[in-house]
Amino acid sequence: MSTISGFPEWLPEQRIIELKWMDEIRRVYESYGFCSIETPSVEEIDVLLSKGETDKEIYVLTRLQSDEDKSDARLGLHYDLTVPLARYVAEHYNNLVFPFKRYQIQRAWRGERPQVGRYREFYQCDIDVVNVDQLPLQFDAEVPAIIYDVIRRLVDGPFHISISNRKILEGYFRGLDIEDTVSAIRIVDKLDKIGEDGVRSQLQSSLSLPREVAQRCLELARIRATDLSFVDQVRALGIETPLLTQGLDELVFVLEALHTLPQGTIVADLSIARGLDYYTGTVYETRLLEYPTLGSICSGGRYDNLAGSFINRKLPGVGISLGLTRLFAKLLAEQRLPLGPKCPTQVLVVLPRAELREETASLARLLRERGLNVEMYHTPGKIANQLRYAARKGIPYVWFPPFDEGGKHEVKNMITQQQTEANPTTWTPQG
Amino acid sequence: MSTISGFPEWLPEQRIIELKWMDEIRRVYESYGFCSIETPSVEEIDVLLSKGETDKEIYVLTRLQSDEDKSDARLGLHYDLTVPLARYVAEHYNNLVFPFKRYQIQRAWRGERPQVGRYREFYQCDIDVVNVDQLPLQFDAEVPAIIYDVIRRLVDGPFHISISNRKILEGYFRGLDIEDTVSAIRIVDKLDKIGEDGVRSQLQSSLSLPREVAQRCLELARIRATDLSFVDQVRALGIETPLLTQGLDELVFVLEALHTLPQGTIVADLSIARGLDYYTGTVYETRLLEYPTLGSICSGGRYDNLAGSFINRKLPGVGISLGLTRLFAKLLAEQRLPLGPKCPTQVLVVLPRAELREETASLARLLRERGLNVEMYHTPGKIANQLRYAARKGIPYVWFPPFDEGGKHEVKNMITQQQTEANPTTWTPQG
Repeated sequence: MSTISGFPEWLPEQRIIELKWMDEIRRVYESYGFCSIETPSVEEIDVLLSKGETDKEIYVLTRLQSDEDKSDARLGLHYDLTVPLARYVAEHYNNLVFPFKRYQIQRAWRGERPQVGRYREFYQCDIDVVNVDQLPLQFDAEVPAIIYDVIRRLVDGPFHISISNRKILEGYFRGLDIEDTVSAIRIVDKLDKIGEDGVRSQLQSSLSLPREVAQRCLELARIRATDLSFVDQVRALGIETPLLTQGLDELVFVLEALHTLPQGTIVADLSIARGLDYYTGTVYETRLLEYPTLGSICSGGRYDNLAGSFINRKLPGVGISLGLTRLFAKLLAEQRLPLGPKCPTQVLVVLPRAELREETASLARLLRERGLNVEMYHTPGKIANQLRYAARKGIPYVWFPPFDEGGKHEVKNMITQQQTEANPTTWTPQG
Repeated sequence: MSTISGFPEWLPEQRIIELKWMDEIRRVYESYGFCSIETPSVEEIDVLLSKGETDKEIYVLTRLQSDEDKSDARLGLHYDLTVPLARYVAEHYNNLVFPFKRYQIQRAWRGERPQVGRYREFYQCDIDVVNVDQLPLQFDAEVPAIIYDVIRRLVDGPFHISISNRKILEGYFRGLDIEDTVSAIRIVDKLDKIGEDGVRSQLQSSLSLPREVAQRCLELARIRATDLSFVDQVRALGIETPLLTQGLDELVFVLEALHTLPQGTIVADLSIARGLDYYTGTVYETRLLEYPTLGSICSGGRYDNLAGSFINRKLPGVGISLGLTRLFAKLLAEQRLPLGPKCPTQVLVVLPRAELREETASLARLLRERGLNVEMYHTPGKIANQLRYAARKGIPYVWFPPFDEGGKHEVKNMITQQQTEANPTTWTPQG
């Protein structure tokens, strides 16, 4: 009866913080005009596999009892929110207004072997913009601005949003006459994990590149800047191709649009490529400087054609996915979350005697109608027990209705332990 | 590529209403001090089957690729939120404060054949109170009060919350010397579906009751009252047992505590038994008078021992479950929901020329910091296109920043079509 490995579950005081996070994320996403959608937890297996081979392990549904009709075996739980978005946009194409800006806060599932920081069921909080034919570059800049707004509300430590553009890597590699640019990008993307020596030797062994060419690949991937100086650094490498120039122009546009964010938060990092993913332009990663081994908590980018396998229209998009559960679980484990009360109750109204039940209930109702979260203690009896209940649940105020005719209302602040007279029609909690 | 049968999915303008519903439900549940929990979507199959035989068809997970390790076959998607609550309370017993009052708004899954009004994936919004050893009757009265507060916010038509107590039926049947009271309750529970003649004949044929006894069962089940007159009606039937008296006392307590709700909303209905379920005292059903065929949209009751199969403690509970998806889909189909905008944007800021991008972006930022949901149009160009975008998405206001130096800010109300001067540091939307 232990919790199932890889399927996290929180205590009420933890869940209150998770819920607060989700409220914040939603509020920021909506403040930029993104609409909420939800898709079913399942898609047809063919849809889930439509992006070609996936390295994600899919959970398939079968029915426990039915032995005649096993046709549901074609359904699987989604492993991300991007494939469902592609199917959604294609399916509801005629009922959507483009550019379609949506957010989606939902669980996803991957049947992988559980390990530290990896979950089999987890929340993702995605935003994407999808348009028909062309998608303005403006959105490539808006996406990290939104993520900045979100992360600074959730995390009190420093973080980097690293941005690059795949066209830079690809244009540069073409300028070096590398044929298999896709494999080259995939290898450079491992820089973080296998280091410069590892990347250099893989470029030499897997792609048969001369050591000098592999070295020049690394020179590009090394470039990092918190301003536009990366352009001159790239130019100094002496390679020029139209695709490289386009990639640099796009990255300059995005960084310029983000110049109002605090200096140093946005980093042009030309090593970023997002490995196996299907991105074609801007790419993003987000890292907490205090927890480098956590990896990117927010990744995404631009893709040329999201829904191409479902509908005969070109639908380019750009988006990013916040890995909420992984981030939340990490900060929880590091005791960086301010765990407080175990319930949303602001006021506990005590019930001293059974005869006062009706008056006490109507007092609780009055306070509730005034927008407060109020419990009436569930059974008449010792006040000490009622105070103990409030203390254990972390309820900040305890209300004493008049015990006798002509008595006064009083409220006890459970933190300061001060008890003062109060008027139920005007009283409000402090702070 | 059509939507998978039984797995509903909403358009953005529909989802906005569903989200508003969920916000309302959560706000009411929290106003009574209930805390939020979520449990994983899956439980071990043994846990799902722990209440004995279930008539719900369970979805089992298997992994698509892995052929060595199929051990996840022991996991199934939960078919309600009550079994997961039982497992949660038992598992976290030492970390919870009792009485434990929780709400849970989550999807559940049943692999049943899809039919009108039945879904395979659907939201349930549950509240339950669980305590150790004894649970005060106060909570049996609080649960329908909460549900009343919720339903009147979601639905603008009349509805009944029908309440009974299983002890009444059981005590009465015992007084009639019926041995198999469980089967008798199960048959009477079908009154709605098979009518009086059906119930009478099943009582006679299945339980071999004399026609006269079957008739007396029906006499009890016929009793309905919106006040305490049901007590005299029962007494008039001339049966008295301790269990019957206890059931009547409990039902009187609950109805008295609810007397502040509008007359006629709460109905004592002695036919209600909740068929196969595991309730032992108070039982609830909720019906919209305009849609009788929809059945109960909110059902629940009291159970003596929720988590008995998981932990060696007596944990009685009382709770109710709102079938959100079924209710929402019905009102949507009946066109009873006020569908509005396709996005949460309150203001679209137009971008007339590329040179104004920076000023326009900083205006949008200012409005956003003031708590408004704001989009900047994504690309400079014709104002007519920008207005058309706002109109199609249902954005209520369009903001015109000064096109030239010394110009004024103006805001267009898209409903009245009026355009007036506005100050970005003070302007607020009307209504």
